[in-house]
Amino acid sequence: MGLNAADAALASKLPQGVLREVTPAYLEEPRGRYQGHAGLIAAPRDLEEAAAIVRACSAAHVAIVPHGGGTGLVGGQLMPDGPAPLVLSLERMNAVRRVYDDESVMVAESGVTLQQARDAASEAGRQFPLSLASQGTAQIGGILSTNAGGVNVLRYGNARALCLGIEAVLPSGEILRDLKRLRKDNTGYDLRDLLIGAEGTLGVITAASLALAPIPAETGVAMMVVEDPAAALRLLAMAQSRMAGSVTAFELIAGQGLEFLAEHFPQMRQPFDPIPQWQVLIEVGLPAGLGAQDALEGLFVAGAEAGLVSDGVIAQSGQQVTDFWNLREHIPLANRAVGAIASHDISLPLSEIPAFINDSRAMLAEQGDMRINCFGHLGDGNLHYNLYPAAGRQRGDYDDQRHALSRMVHEMVVERGGSFSAEHGVGRLKVEDLARWGDPGRLSAIRSIKAALDPKGIMNPGVILPR
Amino acid sequence: MGLNAADAALASKLPQGVLREVTPAYLEEPRGRYQGHAGLIAAPRDLEEAAAIVRACSAAHVAIVPHGGGTGLVGGQLMPDGPAPLVLSLERMNAVRRVYDDESVMVAESGVTLQQARDAASEAGRQFPLSLASQGTAQIGGILSTNAGGVNVLRYGNARALCLGIEAVLPSGEILRDLKRLRKDNTGYDLRDLLIGAEGTLGVITAASLALAPIPAETGVAMMVVEDPAAALRLLAMAQSRMAGSVTAFELIAGQGLEFLAEHFPQMRQPFDPIPQWQVLIEVGLPAGLGAQDALEGLFVAGAEAGLVSDGVIAQSGQQVTDFWNLREHIPLANRAVGAIASHDISLPLSEIPAFINDSRAMLAEQGDMRINCFGHLGDGNLHYNLYPAAGRQRGDYDDQRHALSRMVHEMVVERGGSFSAEHGVGRLKVEDLARWGDPGRLSAIRSIKAALDPKGIMNPGVILPR
Repeated sequence: MGLNAADAALASKLPQGVLREVTPAYLEEPRGRYQGHAGLIAAPRDLEEAAAIVRACSAAHVAIVPHGGGTGLVGGQLMPDGPAPLVLSLERMNAVRRVYDDESVMVAESGVTLQQARDAASEAGRQFPLSLASQGTAQIGGILSTNAGGVNVLRYGNARALCLGIEAVLPSGEILRDLKRLRKDNTGYDLRDLLIGAEGTLGVITAASLALAPIPAETGVAMMVVEDPAAALRLLAMAQSRMAGSVTAFELIAGQGLEFLAEHFPQMRQPFDPIPQWQVLIEVGLPAGLGAQDALEGLFVAGAEAGLVSDGVIAQSGQQVTDFWNLREHIPLANRAVGAIASHDISLPLSEIPAFINDSRAMLAEQGDMRINCFGHLGDGNLHYNLYPAAGRQRGDYDDQRHALSRMVHEMVVERGGSFSAEHGVGRLKVEDLARWGDPGRLSAIRSIKAALDPKGIMNPGVILPR
Repeated sequence: MGLNAADAALASKLPQGVLREVTPAYLEEPRGRYQGHAGLIAAPRDLEEAAAIVRACSAAHVAIVPHGGGTGLVGGQLMPDGPAPLVLSLERMNAVRRVYDDESVMVAESGVTLQQARDAASEAGRQFPLSLASQGTAQIGGILSTNAGGVNVLRYGNARALCLGIEAVLPSGEILRDLKRLRKDNTGYDLRDLLIGAEGTLGVITAASLALAPIPAETGVAMMVVEDPAAALRLLAMAQSRMAGSVTAFELIAGQGLEFLAEHFPQMRQPFDPIPQWQVLIEVGLPAGLGAQDALEGLFVAGAEAGLVSDGVIAQSGQQVTDFWNLREHIPLANRAVGAIASHDISLPLSEIPAFINDSRAMLAEQGDMRINCFGHLGDGNLHYNLYPAAGRQRGDYDDQRHALSRMVHEMVVERGGSFSAEHGVGRLKVEDLARWGDPGRLSAIRSIKAALDPKGIMNPGVILPR
């Protein structure tokens, strides 16, 4: 490779054999919004090499971009401009160091993919209950750095809730050894949770101890037709109260999404005909002795009696469970085929959701003709709120409106106590949003902490805070 | 009150009517290890007054000691020496601001007692699933600042896991408004978790939004006799696997504790005769349709078949449930009546517990004749490991050994990847322990953050870090 003098000087300070070829895979992100650049790409084999790389960059004042699976949706995994950074890929730190069966704990390095972690847990008769569409590629380090969510947060929490300890390299090159396997430890500030969700701006997580969960003895899935989001929320409360928190997923699906699905994936069988305006997918994980189908039937009957549910199907086989989830997971694919004007990863206090959905629809109607697909993890108050061209029109027709539309949606969310980034993070995409809507006290503390731990500003500059 | 000139000057800068009389209640802690002092005691009525007090102290370089219910066991609630601080009591910020039934969220001010919070949740048909012996006095602000634990952590997590957002005053007097009611929000650093467990050294939490949980449809409690801690752990794993994580408490009780109980509370009926060497208390909270007694019976049978359990009783009534818990909760009272040489709030990786209990017993036997009561939240790996005089001897006989014994216990814990403070925090009592056993990278980051957020060092100086 032809390196410039500064990169060659830095390369000479790195541990032997850590450099990788600078290839496009490290410099792209899934939605193609940003194109990254890099002077060097280094992949350490262990913690000591990772620390040596950080120390060398710190001495040379070269920025570091930590790189996991590269599946993030807000551009936190690359740097599009400024002096060329070193990309620090965790791909070779990809060992599940150990599964502690009798503790329900796994220690995994950051380069382990979510799927590998899930498989290792399964082999031990446990589950790692974090599930994402990108789990074959997304890595543990990135999952933690972005505090990823997914479909089972309702029962098991975000990535944050599943992490007992971390090992990391701080921006100074110092090592943070906090890979504890403890459920309780009150000995000083919670640095683990500070690095989780910091999107690589306070250090590089190199390994984590992860909490595993028992596999429920009985699982079941149902789809139910509800009148509106308010009815869906009341059904959720009913389900949680009947099932003592054993509801593992509660997904809201809009008729619009099902219509996109019918159009672009006509081979997929949909459970209801005609397509309902709103339906929910409910998954439960129950103790032994209580049949999941009975429990879901009981919920359906109670929901129908309360006027919340008008139709429903309960999966009768493992295949049908897969089919139901398949339907849910194809909605983003159908969305992509249609092509969104703008998409939003928002969360709201649960009680604000019905009014938000009504009011935002009315507000957007005033802005012109478009289609809204609002779906997602209702149990967590997390909606994917996407805007699409009216039938017969193109994305491009809305180019000059896009920015204003997103601003309006986010404003309505923030006014109602919601978040403009529920699970994807701030990355580079939402730096301005954070500056605009973040609480001044929070922003001030965030800046102080960043300056204290990374005084040279070398860790993923431009992510979360402006450069 | 007769104030010195400096205190009088500071008093004149405070909001009208916030000063309270300096009375002993603010300057004591439950175990009488420390005696605090104070120049002023101020109790703000709202957030703005709290911020004004902090700003005035900051300008005057006067230390602030946040004060909740005063039930902490490590001396974090008072300052025994140095220039007299201002004690900032949250006692008047004692409103449950609102319970959001349909969100299962409560917003409560820091001065609300844990019992009041639990009652407010019950009235809304929910539970606030944090339970401590001191809940009638302990306040939400202190609960969060110390990341309190208790008996239901196994299922519901520590205080940290039950907090969705906080409102706080930072050491600069700036206000942190982050009282969100969201289950998902990835917009910058997790300041909430940084202040939780910071024991008042990074600011004063004034209010919090708390996650409530559904009340399980079926609850049950059983006591079972196990051969040893290893069998108890295998029974725990069996219970969790059968009940899909519906085990809400799993407490280990040592025969020594039951003997202390028999001696000092002879009127309490114990379920097993003779007193077994080890027993466990198991509580479950199950979905509707699955009888708790059936579930516990099923566990007993399976446990007996696996050779883990030799005897058991399942509570047949609400009264019996209360009686079983009463027994568990009287163990610390009996302990106090005996008088410990030294007590330890430790946690260990679950798989290390059996060997730790054996090895520490052998190690202590070499140090002289004493009795060990080792009990606690086994499901969380959290043991209260207390040493008592041999029968016929006095606490005082061990005075010159006390320090060395604690050091040895803590050393064995740390060597096995455990914590020298599982739930009580560092406070003033364990500052030296943290300096000795804390990871250097962690300590360095803790110091940097403290210096960044509290450059004048006015927030609870001497707690967590040495002054």
